[in-house]
Amino acid sequence: MASCQARLERSLSHWLPAAGTHPSILHESMRYAVLDGGKRIRPTLVYASGRAVGSEPELLDDPASAIEFMHAYSLVHDDLPAMDDDDLRRGKPSCHKAYGEATAILAGDALQSLAFYVLGHGNTALTDQARHHMIEALALAAGSRGMAGGQCIDLAAAGQELDIAELEDMHIHKTGALIRCSVVLGALTNAQLEPDVLGKLDHYAKCIGLAFQIRDDILDEEGETGTLGKRSGSDRSSGKSTYPALIGLDAAKQRADELHEEAMDSLSGLGEPADPLRWISLYIIERDR
Amino acid sequence: MASCQARLERSLSHWLPAAGTHPSILHESMRYAVLDGGKRIRPTLVYASGRAVGSEPELLDDPASAIEFMHAYSLVHDDLPAMDDDDLRRGKPSCHKAYGEATAILAGDALQSLAFYVLGHGNTALTDQARHHMIEALALAAGSRGMAGGQCIDLAAAGQELDIAELEDMHIHKTGALIRCSVVLGALTNAQLEPDVLGKLDHYAKCIGLAFQIRDDILDEEGETGTLGKRSGSDRSSGKSTYPALIGLDAAKQRADELHEEAMDSLSGLGEPADPLRWISLYIIERDR
Repeated sequence: MASCQARLERSLSHWLPAAGTHPSILHESMRYAVLDGGKRIRPTLVYASGRAVGSEPELLDDPASAIEFMHAYSLVHDDLPAMDDDDLRRGKPSCHKAYGEATAILAGDALQSLAFYVLGHGNTALTDQARHHMIEALALAAGSRGMAGGQCIDLAAAGQELDIAELEDMHIHKTGALIRCSVVLGALTNAQLEPDVLGKLDHYAKCIGLAFQIRDDILDEEGETGTLGKRSGSDRSSGKSTYPALIGLDAAKQRADELHEEAMDSLSGLGEPADPLRWISLYIIERDR
Repeated sequence: MASCQARLERSLSHWLPAAGTHPSILHESMRYAVLDGGKRIRPTLVYASGRAVGSEPELLDDPASAIEFMHAYSLVHDDLPAMDDDDLRRGKPSCHKAYGEATAILAGDALQSLAFYVLGHGNTALTDQARHHMIEALALAAGSRGMAGGQCIDLAAAGQELDIAELEDMHIHKTGALIRCSVVLGALTNAQLEPDVLGKLDHYAKCIGLAFQIRDDILDEEGETGTLGKRSGSDRSSGKSTYPALIGLDAAKQRADELHEEAMDSLSGLGEPADPLRWISLYIIERDR
């Protein structure tokens, strides 16, 4: 996985226009929002999913980069004063703190465009058909019925006590859609993939997407700001519903463990090539940031 | 052209999720930002350019809708308090005035995703290759080296006196890129198009893109708020450089006329099918809103 991380950083830097490109403040802010930071879970899922279906890493750099640009844009916009109003992200001042609100809005907008540009322009080894299926999946996952919709649900829920069904509905949109999409993009690099394998990978992705969010809530409760790279307790203090608040800390940890087991089960029969997907699931429920 | 307008409105409404779709406030705001308003110049250019290269209207609905979604998103974000802070758009309260800032940011974000979704998912009669060339062109035109870059240049220029070269650089990015892209998307529906025809159409688009902006500046100087659907004089009063301010009102009108002539010349040899493109160029320099 370390070699994939190195590939990814090279690919991200390749696709981002140089900081001196006109208008330079915008390109600087885009690079600031993407490079040197983040756990890179979504692109790592692209590589791991691609490996599980037998695709070479060369095919995976572009979808991995596209998904990370999309994720980075969402963080920049989520942190804006009108949204979650966070001033710390990935251990640095958030984009609008560093570059101002207008530039941050535009940097997010341009990162979304860049995600689609990479899939439209990039990897000549991908078939045209794979490419447009990827674009369709990414656009759906990012849009109003996916990630953007989830952020809207999240904002509407501030100060309200959600029940578990409402909380999961929010997470399925806000973080689940893009995590599922990461696994799907990796799988789409194999044009001969059998539908039932895609179904298994998709179920795996659904489980870890939810486990990821539960772990996030647990860390918000237990973690330390220095390790997290963002303020601990910020969700609780801003009146957001969390799993620990709704079902208690122990039950939340147990639910994350169960989802990990379910994710493991859905990979049965995929053998050794799916090992990186297994490691990621374990990482997700054990991570401390 | 009237029949194209009707096609477009049907297509826009088809692609926009129904206002009741969860989360409904987001889908309501997206429909608010797109439907019942606007001159629809960009999608009209898609239909006109497609007609000039012999494509049936059926092939043009999707690219026309995609470009209008992209344009609508840019208006929603440009109007935000952190950007141009405009409270009136298309004769109605701007999106953030009607739905709040957070929802407006998300509506813009989701409209950009929707633009790519339409091109990735839509028209089965388009070849996969045409589709991904369209996506590449649209992503480049909308992103940091196109429209988003232009808005950044525009904001950085506020309160500064630009020279003509700087002003044109800004407009080439901010409005020119998407207008050129409209013409290119229409042309890309003909897979057998000769490169020199594409070159002619692109030159036409460059000329009318700039003429459009000059006319905008003239209207900002001369127009009335009620007709414009946005505040007249708002550019001037916010310290933005305009053509009339830099070269005078008469010289600005003359420059717009010259660009119209140049646009006409670049269509020579394309015959009657290019007539709608000719009408649009004339409309652009004569319009009063």
